[in-house]
Amino acid sequence: MPTTATHTSPWLLAKRAAKMNPSVIREILKVTEQPGIISFAGGLPSPKTFPVAEFEAACAKVLRDDPHAALQYAASEGFGPLRDMVAAGLPWQVDPARILITTGSQQGLDLVAKVLVDAGSKILVESPTYLGAVMAFTPMEPEVVSVANDADGVDLADLRAKAKGARFLYALPNFQNPTGRTMSEASRAALSAEAARLGLPIIEDNPYGDLWFDAAPPAPLTARNPEGCIYLGSFSKVLAPGLRLGYIVAPQAVYPKLLQAKQAADLHSPGLNQRLIAEVMKDGFLERHVPTIRALYKSQRDAMLEALAREMPAGEPDATLTWNTPAGGMFLWARLPKGMSAVDLLPFAVGKGVAFVPGAPFYADHADPRTLRLSFVTPSVEEIQRGVAALAAAIKVYATGLKP
Amino acid sequence: MPTTATHTSPWLLAKRAAKMNPSVIREILKVTEQPGIISFAGGLPSPKTFPVAEFEAACAKVLRDDPHAALQYAASEGFGPLRDMVAAGLPWQVDPARILITTGSQQGLDLVAKVLVDAGSKILVESPTYLGAVMAFTPMEPEVVSVANDADGVDLADLRAKAKGARFLYALPNFQNPTGRTMSEASRAALSAEAARLGLPIIEDNPYGDLWFDAAPPAPLTARNPEGCIYLGSFSKVLAPGLRLGYIVAPQAVYPKLLQAKQAADLHSPGLNQRLIAEVMKDGFLERHVPTIRALYKSQRDAMLEALAREMPAGEPDATLTWNTPAGGMFLWARLPKGMSAVDLLPFAVGKGVAFVPGAPFYADHADPRTLRLSFVTPSVEEIQRGVAALAAAIKVYATGLKP
Repeated sequence: MPTTATHTSPWLLAKRAAKMNPSVIREILKVTEQPGIISFAGGLPSPKTFPVAEFEAACAKVLRDDPHAALQYAASEGFGPLRDMVAAGLPWQVDPARILITTGSQQGLDLVAKVLVDAGSKILVESPTYLGAVMAFTPMEPEVVSVANDADGVDLADLRAKAKGARFLYALPNFQNPTGRTMSEASRAALSAEAARLGLPIIEDNPYGDLWFDAAPPAPLTARNPEGCIYLGSFSKVLAPGLRLGYIVAPQAVYPKLLQAKQAADLHSPGLNQRLIAEVMKDGFLERHVPTIRALYKSQRDAMLEALAREMPAGEPDATLTWNTPAGGMFLWARLPKGMSAVDLLPFAVGKGVAFVPGAPFYADHADPRTLRLSFVTPSVEEIQRGVAALAAAIKVYATGLKP
Repeated sequence: MPTTATHTSPWLLAKRAAKMNPSVIREILKVTEQPGIISFAGGLPSPKTFPVAEFEAACAKVLRDDPHAALQYAASEGFGPLRDMVAAGLPWQVDPARILITTGSQQGLDLVAKVLVDAGSKILVESPTYLGAVMAFTPMEPEVVSVANDADGVDLADLRAKAKGARFLYALPNFQNPTGRTMSEASRAALSAEAARLGLPIIEDNPYGDLWFDAAPPAPLTARNPEGCIYLGSFSKVLAPGLRLGYIVAPQAVYPKLLQAKQAADLHSPGLNQRLIAEVMKDGFLERHVPTIRALYKSQRDAMLEALAREMPAGEPDATLTWNTPAGGMFLWARLPKGMSAVDLLPFAVGKGVAFVPGAPFYADHADPRTLRLSFVTPSVEEIQRGVAALAAAIKVYATGLKP
């Protein structure tokens, strides 16, 4: 061996590491996290919705009544009473033995990829899709292919054309991140039947489903075919993301391997946190608490819709900004006039004091550069009004062709 | 597509899933977790050492002073003040920017494998080694090769013979799990120099290093060559495992990719837990607390050594049970007389009311079937005495050739 080896870096990275790069969106968020900027960019739940007093009481109780179990190593499957509560709260019949508690639903995505994706495996995603899922799948080196869809759901002709050999379709049917759109009942029924016919598993991600504004969304895809779907849920949007707890509902054909991957990944999710969530949730707390989140987010969405209608000029879809009306969740999806790019608009917007996330990074392929994501849950109503006015002003300047 | 697809399982598992199987040891633990059995099998810290009152006070303070940050999404790198404390507490100069907080040090192993291991990559481990590490590496499909070693450390001739093309050597120099052995100063110095010469990175795992009984162990391998090593630390053995917090210290050549893998795996470790640990640790709590754990575990080790000396017959190493004298940690390593197998002994032991873990599963290759691991931290001194007597009785019956 050459003795010069001490002078060079000994580190040889795995091939997959070349594909593991910082999220474009996180980088954008850093740029836009300047003081004084009104941010429609983040994806953070409003801290006003965190049940702090309930967590304080739960902490005191758990550490008084059951400290040694809460602080000790525990089973990889998760805390039994919490698994029971999760199963009981789902809108279809679920055996608690099919529930695996995860360190945020982000970990659910990591485990799913480990168990189902080989290097080069094709996986299908919506167009656009949740970027964090693609990041979680990437270390297993899949070929990520997007399936076309409209505001109602997945395009089944395109799905049929692309399904062959695909390991699964990853879908977020309720108040999707980034678009805020919801799959209709008809679209769910048709997708569920078609996926079963094709033998195509579905990974259904549902972090936002409880945050509906006027009516609950249609039944999950998994409820229609539990043996053909893996369902991912989260406590982050209804209680608090900082505890990092979510769950997987998986059929017996996959559960043991997901459990094994979980054990290898972090042994188990924190026992203290699982007991805190179980303690807060018992006695139907979510039935009282979640409606307050819905009401808050709905008022914020309404403020954004009103401000957009007031500030943005009317016109044809290719001549002015257009946007959708999310029926729940945290995000609204907008589209700039023809020829504009949301990435190019961003510095003008930051110059006017408002930030958003361009839509392009959310597409696995065939990105629409005119799209942008607006989060309405973190800023106040007054900030939403000023922010939308600033966005309108930014679009006007950008349209003149001047420099930002 | 055949319409019969609906009648068959749609799930095609990744190739790696075939290698992801339940830990032999977890299966053994299940068998031995019967009421009335004295267990030397587990690897759980004594719950007597959990600072419950301090965690109660910390919970109340964090949720009173900083609830929204503690419960919100947070940076993937970890909580700044905790990273500062970790860096300041290490026995070599470490920039806090090189610290990545992980969901237990188990997650550190998962991230290391993702960033450094391609399918088929050779990785080197001690003989025997920590089984949880092999489980964490397995999903990345390495070829795991064990390097010979004696009670003092790694056999450098064997290391040289096997180092070519290896991605790293995984080593646990302090009070190793499973053997309880500690690498000597001379062995560390020689290994560090040889690894640098070979251009072989070292992954140094140190969950037990603070649990020394009479004298602190020699300086870590990483302190001798920080650019050539990744160091994994844990709060599980000095505070509590149920919070699932550990950390990685990584050189700049690898840190950004580990951070990216961390973000994809679970976004960040729980912010509440990180603040609890930081709150408990401030003002030098560990300097007062850890000596109490050392004193407890030392008294338990002494009880086990005394019971072994009293109960086991004297004789030549091939004719009787032999054991080592761990200088810290949680485990003692023993070896049965020639011709015996610890796996075969186990049912006799359970029959007599005592459990242990056979050593064979801890070897990546060339397992020594005579070895067994005895944990001395969970049972009481009185249970240790009864348990060792039961073990001696079991060996005696097993030696007669009767059925258990």
